[in-house]
Amino acid sequence: MTTKKLGSQTAALASPPSFAGWANVAGKKEGEGPLASTFDYIDKDDTFGESTWEKAESTMQKQALGLALDKAGQAASSLDWLFAGDLLNQCISSSFAARGQDIPFFGLYGACSTMGEGLVLASMVLDGGFGELAAVTASSHFCSAERQYRTPLEYGGQRTPTSQWTATAAGAAILAREGLGPYITHVTVGKIVDKGIADTNNMGAAMAPAAHATITAHFQDTGRSPSSYDLIVTGDLGVLGSELLIELLRRDGISLKAHADCGAMLFDIKGQDVHCGGSGCGCCASVLTGHLLNGMKAGKWKDILFCPTGALHSPTSSFQGESIPGICHAVAISASR
Amino acid sequence: MTTKKLGSQTAALASPPSFAGWANVAGKKEGEGPLASTFDYIDKDDTFGESTWEKAESTMQKQALGLALDKAGQAASSLDWLFAGDLLNQCISSSFAARGQDIPFFGLYGACSTMGEGLVLASMVLDGGFGELAAVTASSHFCSAERQYRTPLEYGGQRTPTSQWTATAAGAAILAREGLGPYITHVTVGKIVDKGIADTNNMGAAMAPAAHATITAHFQDTGRSPSSYDLIVTGDLGVLGSELLIELLRRDGISLKAHADCGAMLFDIKGQDVHCGGSGCGCCASVLTGHLLNGMKAGKWKDILFCPTGALHSPTSSFQGESIPGICHAVAISASR
Repeated sequence: MTTKKLGSQTAALASPPSFAGWANVAGKKEGEGPLASTFDYIDKDDTFGESTWEKAESTMQKQALGLALDKAGQAASSLDWLFAGDLLNQCISSSFAARGQDIPFFGLYGACSTMGEGLVLASMVLDGGFGELAAVTASSHFCSAERQYRTPLEYGGQRTPTSQWTATAAGAAILAREGLGPYITHVTVGKIVDKGIADTNNMGAAMAPAAHATITAHFQDTGRSPSSYDLIVTGDLGVLGSELLIELLRRDGISLKAHADCGAMLFDIKGQDVHCGGSGCGCCASVLTGHLLNGMKAGKWKDILFCPTGALHSPTSSFQGESIPGICHAVAISASR
Repeated sequence: MTTKKLGSQTAALASPPSFAGWANVAGKKEGEGPLASTFDYIDKDDTFGESTWEKAESTMQKQALGLALDKAGQAASSLDWLFAGDLLNQCISSSFAARGQDIPFFGLYGACSTMGEGLVLASMVLDGGFGELAAVTASSHFCSAERQYRTPLEYGGQRTPTSQWTATAAGAAILAREGLGPYITHVTVGKIVDKGIADTNNMGAAMAPAAHATITAHFQDTGRSPSSYDLIVTGDLGVLGSELLIELLRRDGISLKAHADCGAMLFDIKGQDVHCGGSGCGCCASVLTGHLLNGMKAGKWKDILFCPTGALHSPTSSFQGESIPGICHAVAISASR
């Protein structure tokens, strides 16, 4: 067999897997934002009927998976593999969401890039001939993230202008070896990029160089260019991170004619007081499994490059003076194969 | 292409990937134990020359990877993919170890089962035709784990009889699409199993049902039996967890003639005061990449079933009254293919 690897970090899927179903759930604030109509379920008080924020996040992931399976017309028992991840210590949202579901399970940690990492691995595993159906889920919750990463909600800490708002959202996608599309045709796996940004309230700046590196590698590995895509969507660089990405690409003589960022799209930036925009694993996961895939299905876009970004630090690494390692995975999604 | 999936959770590798190189590093206490001669490097004071335990753990993972690459006669730049994970919040040991290494990176969270999860994914990706060479690394450090999961070291907390000792160790394996073996022929991906054990000082009991489920599934999916293997090695069930596994299998009428457990082998259980044995991602990672693969190379065993186990809880989930979800992945390693 010849290798299906292109260049240094891209895989070309020989039989591009198809999105068989997708769904998302979101919190109250997200449900009041510009993408409200693209959410399958919006909770009225962000508890999702649970007694703790962590259990709420777990329930969100379970709900999103159940809804995506319904749309795909499949039962959980027909899934060959489940790839899942989140931001919480020891990824408990994912493990507890998968408990009792009886599906072979892969836990991932890619911070806010997790949805991309999961799609990359699920695509390669299905294309490799292993099984017929895989699910990818990712989630985040504003309240579980705030108390883990920052301060107790009750403290009411002031937020800096460059900060982003962790989305209360989860997304799930079902991939099938055969189907009607959209299809994942190429995946570019990110390398860790760290340009020395140490401000945990400016993660857009920390992640922009990783997005720049992966998008550049994707073009080099595949011979494609910005014009190959109707839309190039970054994960959650937010407003400032997006500007930095555009500037980094401009210096290379590359201009992205159609760029959007999930973090900048999820909220009404000024009206909802989210400073630089949304973030969290659930941000790009819910934008993909609503706005983006719905739009492709409706014929709005034919080719999208979906580029989730992640900041791979922890409070401990930051307290110890470390800068923030960034990563970005790129997933090429096409209406045809 | 016909599917390479057997039964509900096993993948059969069409072109079994070969271990091209493997290496490990260990701390002082591990270096005084029964497996001392199987470690490539033993640090004299567990700092590995770093100023914090977290940085020490990151350095361990980097060292293990470097040594394994040396043994494989390969440069880091020839690696197609790196799969890595650890126990720390946001998996910082792995991300910081991979920083600056310029390798497409997949972050994993499978608790102490991480080495198994990484070998499963790397095998499927290589067998699927994606690239030629992949590395899998995992680590744990007694001191970084104690302060994250339990109490500050200086507190000198009393340990219960069922507790295990987090290994200060890291292991790295290089897998190649072609090579002289040993080979990974089958992988059985774990489902999450939770029988309601909530005592975080008895993780062997929490994980034993997962090991039981995965080993049983492996036999069912492949048509194999205990006699197919010269050795069936669980990850870190420890002494008590191993007894529980043997009892669970005995009730099904299955007897494992040759069973060993990495947690029970790593230390001199009584002489080194480790209660039920070793644990942590680095425990089975370092036993595989020393004692087990060296033994296979020396002709001691021809067929091994390597079954790392993980406990997927967090301090937060335990404080909220949750029980401990367990997982176990099984990797069939053979001297021939």
